[in-house]
Amino acid sequence: MATFNLLLLPGDGIGPEVMNEVKRVAFWFNETGVVSFNIDEDLVGGCAYDEYGEPITDAAMQRATAADAVMLGAVGGPKWDGVPYDKRPEAGLLRLRRDLGLFANLRPAICYPALADSSSLKREVVEGLDIMIVRELTGGAYFGEPKEVVTLEDGQQRAVDTQVYTSSEIERIARVAFDLARKRRNLVHSAEKRNVMRTGVLWNEVVTRVHQDSYSDVELTHILADNCAMQLVRWPKQFDVIVTDNLFGDMLSDEAAMLTGSLGMLPSASLGEAQASGRKRAMYEPVHGSAPDIAGKGIANPIAMLASFAMALRYSFDLAEEADMLERAITSVLDQGLRTGDIMQEGMSRVGTDEMGKAIVAAL
Amino acid sequence: MATFNLLLLPGDGIGPEVMNEVKRVAFWFNETGVVSFNIDEDLVGGCAYDEYGEPITDAAMQRATAADAVMLGAVGGPKWDGVPYDKRPEAGLLRLRRDLGLFANLRPAICYPALADSSSLKREVVEGLDIMIVRELTGGAYFGEPKEVVTLEDGQQRAVDTQVYTSSEIERIARVAFDLARKRRNLVHSAEKRNVMRTGVLWNEVVTRVHQDSYSDVELTHILADNCAMQLVRWPKQFDVIVTDNLFGDMLSDEAAMLTGSLGMLPSASLGEAQASGRKRAMYEPVHGSAPDIAGKGIANPIAMLASFAMALRYSFDLAEEADMLERAITSVLDQGLRTGDIMQEGMSRVGTDEMGKAIVAAL
Ligand SMILES: CC(C)[C@H](C(=O)O)[C@@H](O)C(=O)O
Ligand SMILES: CC(C)[C@H](C(=O)O)[C@@H](O)C(=O)O
Repeated sequence: MATFNLLLLPGDGIGPEVMNEVKRVAFWFNETGVVSFNIDEDLVGGCAYDEYGEPITDAAMQRATAADAVMLGAVGGPKWDGVPYDKRPEAGLLRLRRDLGLFANLRPAICYPALADSSSLKREVVEGLDIMIVRELTGGAYFGEPKEVVTLEDGQQRAVDTQVYTSSEIERIARVAFDLARKRRNLVHSAEKRNVMRTGVLWNEVVTRVHQDSYSDVELTHILADNCAMQLVRWPKQFDVIVTDNLFGDMLSDEAAMLTGSLGMLPSASLGEAQASGRKRAMYEPVHGSAPDIAGKGIANPIAMLASFAMALRYSFDLAEEADMLERAITSVLDQGLRTGDIMQEGMSRVGTDEMGKAIVAAL
Repeated sequence: MATFNLLLLPGDGIGPEVMNEVKRVAFWFNETGVVSFNIDEDLVGGCAYDEYGEPITDAAMQRATAADAVMLGAVGGPKWDGVPYDKRPEAGLLRLRRDLGLFANLRPAICYPALADSSSLKREVVEGLDIMIVRELTGGAYFGEPKEVVTLEDGQQRAVDTQVYTSSEIERIARVAFDLARKRRNLVHSAEKRNVMRTGVLWNEVVTRVHQDSYSDVELTHILADNCAMQLVRWPKQFDVIVTDNLFGDMLSDEAAMLTGSLGMLPSASLGEAQASGRKRAMYEPVHGSAPDIAGKGIANPIAMLASFAMALRYSFDLAEEADMLERAITSVLDQGLRTGDIMQEGMSRVGTDEMGKAIVAAL
């Protein structure tokens, strides 16, 4: 029986509540006897800062490096607005991404049929929507140096962020996108601002070269990032895979997530390069944030977190069948009419975090 | 009788066609005898490169500097994909923005009632929508140095763009936003990524300070730029004025424009600081691009260009009444059922660029 080490980092806000449901589902899998998850837990974000003065400790980083996969809840909240910049909750998340080398962020934007009406877009525009955004996650404006605020002689302040990309960084993320497209509808849009940014020029050139050299069977379209932001609103179904840099990916994936009307439902996977062992480092997290306003009330929607666990089953543990099972269980509780508050609709039954998790386990 | 010097820079693609309709309307105003426009014309973009080997000449820049207002059509097209980076059509536009000091880009996202159904969003989400995006236009990732691609020793290439903001650049754009909000619904959202970017931290601090010192009567909300991209889709009517940096403004204003279903209808104004003469340098252009696929066919929608002229009447010539007249004329031809191809709907009459322009003059 395959045994996997999972590190849970529930984080802040609703993170611990939704992570509880991952435990419930993982324990259920343990009982089936097909697979065995060893579960470990640690702190990240504001709660880690409160406990240790750091948004993530070196010890937690070591456990994350050793784990077969990391499940992350969410970080941040107004409570930590005043902490020093390099200790803010998000710095813990960014350190995990960078130090684990998780350069490929996969963000599916899927419209669950049961929820198509809760989108602000017309049903025909979003029904059946299935986009995969592939966001570069360890480069660009997030990590480039210099990154600083300095006081000038005249008392003015001057802030700088630096967007840097090397050809090999672009090449490896392009390969991830093309490989995924081959298993999907075989279409990649590469989004940049080559008309304004040098990184956009290089991005465009490298993606074109990788395509010509190794993926000419995949259809490739270059699109300006601002036009992509428009086209996502106009007719999102024109897209299959979108590959883009860290900052554009942040904006475009959030926009795409909201199109579906299913924000509390959307997972993400962040993957590194294959290690000598063949294993890839990996972290899975919901697209939604820590939602401090509803934290501790037992009403958060655990589906994005559980869908992230399904991605872990698929990408880290090669348990495609089990991933399908879990995804079908999610769809089936929605079809049964169960809804947490964020996706509540007339005539449906409102449930809390626990009930939703239990119903999904029952559907399994 | 007031006399104003207008410089027309029609540019590429559909630019010359839609600019023709500005001439038609300006001549009509000349005939009313209320105001007199002296009209001059020059090249910018790909056509300037073809003629002079530069996307804008020094002579054209001098005329732009001397004019009371510049009307710009659109620049760019696949024809110039291969030209050297610093000669590309967009470089002409960027030089105009920078050398004229046009730091404040005002982009209204308005939903014309007659077109609410052509939005991909539900009618109730966009009907009556009226957002003003105030985008910083001469700083940030567009102009910061270093901005280069270098070849490393190992043959790799490394591209860099630099986002820079000083406190005074942020302060002056914040003032523009707060001043506008006072004439509107008194609400400003300031969008940045302070959780990741140092420029976002400074942006947030300066906007907060300007608000406390001079605009505490205006309601101010700080929003993360990725969340803003989401919220625009979810419930755009929560916004009145959004102030943001050059790159986020590029994305968010295009997204907002598309929400309205009225992209071919949306104008923009780019304003500088008041000169000693009291006059502000100013350039007005439609939000849409050069649309090379339909150029030369006489079918382009001139409304965005004419709405940009209405903004010129309002912001450069202090002709608020005439601006209102022109805007009402636009609304009235739409209500009459006239539509160019891009906004065609069942039961309406399809017209070309000229006919649309003539109808608007008739409505005046
Ligand atoms: C929390 C924040 C640092 C993060 C980001 O900007 O990457 C988030 O918005 C995301 O998209 O995962
Ligand atoms: C044409 C291009 C350089 C320009 C920009 O990126 O600013 C355009 O997209 C715009 O928004 O005016």
